[in-house]
Amino acid sequence: MGKAIYDVAIIGGGPAGMSAAIYAGRAHLRTCMLEGMSAGGQMFNTSTIENYPGFGIVDGPELSDKIEAQVRQWGTEIIYGQVTGIHRDREIFELSDAGGNLYQSRTVIVATGTKPRKLGVPGEEELIGSGVSYCATCDGAFFRDRDVAMIGGGDSAIEESLYLARIARRVTVIHRRDTLRAAKDLQERAFAEPRIEFLWDSSVEAILGQTSVEGVRVRNNKTQATSILPVAGVFIYIGTIPNTEFLQGLVPLDESGYIVAGEDTITTVPGLFVAGDIRTKGLRQIVTALADGAVAAMAAERYLGKWGL
Amino acid sequence: MGKAIYDVAIIGGGPAGMSAAIYAGRAHLRTCMLEGMSAGGQMFNTSTIENYPGFGIVDGPELSDKIEAQVRQWGTEIIYGQVTGIHRDREIFELSDAGGNLYQSRTVIVATGTKPRKLGVPGEEELIGSGVSYCATCDGAFFRDRDVAMIGGGDSAIEESLYLARIARRVTVIHRRDTLRAAKDLQERAFAEPRIEFLWDSSVEAILGQTSVEGVRVRNNKTQATSILPVAGVFIYIGTIPNTEFLQGLVPLDESGYIVAGEDTITTVPGLFVAGDIRTKGLRQIVTALADGAVAAMAAERYLGKWGL
Repeated sequence: MGKAIYDVAIIGGGPAGMSAAIYAGRAHLRTCMLEGMSAGGQMFNTSTIENYPGFGIVDGPELSDKIEAQVRQWGTEIIYGQVTGIHRDREIFELSDAGGNLYQSRTVIVATGTKPRKLGVPGEEELIGSGVSYCATCDGAFFRDRDVAMIGGGDSAIEESLYLARIARRVTVIHRRDTLRAAKDLQERAFAEPRIEFLWDSSVEAILGQTSVEGVRVRNNKTQATSILPVAGVFIYIGTIPNTEFLQGLVPLDESGYIVAGEDTITTVPGLFVAGDIRTKGLRQIVTALADGAVAAMAAERYLGKWGL
Repeated sequence: MGKAIYDVAIIGGGPAGMSAAIYAGRAHLRTCMLEGMSAGGQMFNTSTIENYPGFGIVDGPELSDKIEAQVRQWGTEIIYGQVTGIHRDREIFELSDAGGNLYQSRTVIVATGTKPRKLGVPGEEELIGSGVSYCATCDGAFFRDRDVAMIGGGDSAIEESLYLARIARRVTVIHRRDTLRAAKDLQERAFAEPRIEFLWDSSVEAILGQTSVEGVRVRNNKTQATSILPVAGVFIYIGTIPNTEFLQGLVPLDESGYIVAGEDTITTVPGLFVAGDIRTKGLRQIVTALADGAVAAMAAERYLGKWGL
């Protein structure tokens, strides 16, 4: 190899990874950030962001570009490559990417995020950001006094329906069964909330609308009858997929596939830290990802200092 | 009284409080934010911020103003008043301010932050932000390859000296005794670091410089001899004062005076949440304060929903 060994390798270039890069760069650590798609992560695919403090309203790609410029300014090497494997040999991590490149580093910050499970129906991909959303906390405020649909029946679907009921005129929960999986107290609150309605035994077959969502076509799974529900927004909460394939058992995951760590971002593997949505945590937002990135970079700095690496 | 009861009262208008206000406003909660000085908190008094993702380099007051505008946009009422008392009667909190006003709220987010303990010597106040700093993680990067002084001998002083040694040319730790209070492993690492030097039994009598720090005047406490140490930066780590006077035993504090809560921001008092530097946590930065604010607002939202408040 003969290549230099990094102090910090950051896997993933979303808000968590970029925040880690800024903090590691400012600490003069030799840092690389590996990103498989575009710097910004899920933020890059968000058309309008209203809850990033300081920006008022900003496009995801614009904000991503600004943060990326700051990452470069502090000297982090940005490498476009999809990490496919990682292993640890004595005190060095070796990463491999899809292009067959190898990278060595004394510490690793995993910031690969998650992706929402898609419904897989016509209209879904086309209308993401134009009424189709996977995050009520992020996008609910766009639907003040309008009608929205929630697809799903688990804890998150019901919790977020209750949140949306503060903002929207009506929330219709569309669920393929006739009972919810969500916790009983959440169910009771949802049933008591006049702005929440339920469509049972129902599947969404298509999301309708040209430039923005106008409705959904719903099939009743028992009668096979179809109907159209007019809505301005569709929230899809049928699961989340943490991006951890490449880890292959290196670090413990919780039952949903998130990497287990507290707010100190420290995992059970010495020198391996975890930041952002991929970590076990309560609220997955850009600001909580930024916080994790800073904490992980400083934890890596202390780890390197402690072991004289 | 006859006045309306708020859903959320946020005490403190720094990054944590303002982030909480944005999230609470977007959730359509009736929210007020009480601030005793200027919105922005310690951020408002910071001349240059380089580690706020998305801004590259920004003035503290400018960033504070931008976030404040966003707070107003989401409908939070900003009240200028110093909270002096708080008590909880059944499920309602009552807050009083220095002007004798009373406010009622169903939940409270304490985001009052901390203030650094000052040295109290000539030049200190005048040169804050021009070489005098209370935060190495924030300001260390401004002193690349320059000489700096660290005043203090505890864990934070030594930990931050090790951080500064990655960046600065030389770090001189000035301590009034002849031994450090810091943990043994930190001491050993500092003694082994060639870029860290020590001035024992010494007190800083003045910080010198017209428009920026040029040096410090040091007195040896045993010989009473004075000398001048030329430095471009002075980091003061002699303690931090959490702003909790008004709480008067309502919620448990740790031994250093911080309000005890995990990253969920939930305290032992139902309906009382805590966000930002005032919370027991590992890294006190703007981004970690923003994260806390968002988490606290969403925790308040769930608390209100759960109890039908």
